[in-house]
Amino acid sequence: MKVTILGNNSALPAYGRYPTSQAVTIDGDVLLIDCGEATQIQMQRYGIKWRKLEHIFISHLHGDHYFGLPGLINSMGLLGRNLPLHLYAAKPLESILQQMMAVADTALPFEFHFHPLQENESEVLVDNSKFKIISFPVEHRIPCHGFKVEKKSRGRKIILEKCREYAIPAYFYERLKRGEDYEQVHGFVVKNEWLTEDAPQTKKYAYCADTVFTESFLPYLQDVDTLYHESTYLEAETDRATLRFHSTAKQAATIALKANAKQLLLGHFSSRYKELDLFATEARTIFPNSYVAEEGMEFEV
Amino acid sequence: MKVTILGNNSALPAYGRYPTSQAVTIDGDVLLIDCGEATQIQMQRYGIKWRKLEHIFISHLHGDHYFGLPGLINSMGLLGRNLPLHLYAAKPLESILQQMMAVADTALPFEFHFHPLQENESEVLVDNSKFKIISFPVEHRIPCHGFKVEKKSRGRKIILEKCREYAIPAYFYERLKRGEDYEQVHGFVVKNEWLTEDAPQTKKYAYCADTVFTESFLPYLQDVDTLYHESTYLEAETDRATLRFHSTAKQAATIALKANAKQLLLGHFSSRYKELDLFATEARTIFPNSYVAEEGMEFEV
Repeated sequence: MKVTILGNNSALPAYGRYPTSQAVTIDGDVLLIDCGEATQIQMQRYGIKWRKLEHIFISHLHGDHYFGLPGLINSMGLLGRNLPLHLYAAKPLESILQQMMAVADTALPFEFHFHPLQENESEVLVDNSKFKIISFPVEHRIPCHGFKVEKKSRGRKIILEKCREYAIPAYFYERLKRGEDYEQVHGFVVKNEWLTEDAPQTKKYAYCADTVFTESFLPYLQDVDTLYHESTYLEAETDRATLRFHSTAKQAATIALKANAKQLLLGHFSSRYKELDLFATEARTIFPNSYVAEEGMEFEV
Repeated sequence: MKVTILGNNSALPAYGRYPTSQAVTIDGDVLLIDCGEATQIQMQRYGIKWRKLEHIFISHLHGDHYFGLPGLINSMGLLGRNLPLHLYAAKPLESILQQMMAVADTALPFEFHFHPLQENESEVLVDNSKFKIISFPVEHRIPCHGFKVEKKSRGRKIILEKCREYAIPAYFYERLKRGEDYEQVHGFVVKNEWLTEDAPQTKKYAYCADTVFTESFLPYLQDVDTLYHESTYLEAETDRATLRFHSTAKQAATIALKANAKQLLLGHFSSRYKELDLFATEARTIFPNSYVAEEGMEFEV
């Protein structure tokens, strides 16, 4: 599972930086978290395939997190994409998008499902054989959600050499992954533990933007592999951050530490900052494995 | 008066090209015609000052002509701009924008005036001492308008040397510009024609996008200095152009010729074309003074 940063600036574009959007790639699947203006252009630039995108999650209805959505949906339609598209966002967005499509006389060539997020609630949004995604409330000036993406384990890992040694037929591999023993024709039981080893752990990525510094959603972040937490400001602007329901780099690092995360990505930088290195410097005083998540960067979760 | 091309691709972004938007600069004033996604980023890139922008004109409600508008208005608000802003567009856009601002809890720090364009009508939209702007109907799949911008003459041109010779007081210069004679204290009349010469002509720029090939709006284009006419396709795709209510480069050139325009700008290129030179080559077989209007280019009207 990897995260590609498509944009990571706060509302006012500055220094060529784009507003918030991230693609999460899980094997062949692509998820999109937030969709600031020009996300479709950034996706082309960084090689994120639109055809593979079936789920889009919008944290909240400030424009720098969704103004790229109408254009992206429109372009997906023009391209003749045909997989269903699922959009998870605050309820009012549904009627805004419907009106935009109606006045343009747009008919999408794919199924479009709008899933309204419940205010102040955590919900399971997607749960399939490959990944599970939940929402959770964060605290911003308007209703806002974080998201946690969990890549599922694909079962126990098969040791091919051992399977050959015990002449296990290939059709039985799926059952081995689920932990079953194999019984040979003469009744000899080949134990699963001789043939497989522990699977790679599930991987967890949590995304928290935009939010004031608070521990209210910490339970959802416990032990994630990678945490993205907004850091609009540096510590010197802590009062401004609080006033505007944003966080500082140090506050993001504090959350990462308390969550026992393995890696922290910083973003949603205010246009007042030209150089971004200080965000990492500041966060690392509290949580060493912190990174400035710049556009075009890919992070392995 | 000059036109800066901010984006000139049709709906599907391609080859790094952006959707439609143009800035028209008249002395210190800036007008914006259409506002495709990422126009605010393109304005920053090409040095178009937001603070000077008071009038925005949207031809129609296909997304590639206005999806950059919510972000631009939002950013203008964040910047604390305080001049009134006038938006001229099809009526349904008003409620879409209002909803977007309401859900974001956005309060603009400037007066915002929405002027709905009348379907199938030509109207005078702005008429001040510096310029006059009219709308006129063009023919597209949904209601669509062209715009004509006329930079006004600033009155007769004063010959300073002659004014000094006849001791004309400076307070009288404005009246000289309007063509008045000056009467000296002893009753001698200094003729206006001795003191001034013909003013520079007014300049006219007409913008026609998106539209099928038709002469229906030709009367509005007569003798313009510069005509922008969409040319989504090359001649080989004439049938496709007609079917989709678009034009070819040759058709745009035909309109420029019939309008007796001095210069033709071509744009709104389909994403099927990587190289754009052929658009000018094709148009020039009919109207020699034709140009491919690429992003970042400036044209003197």
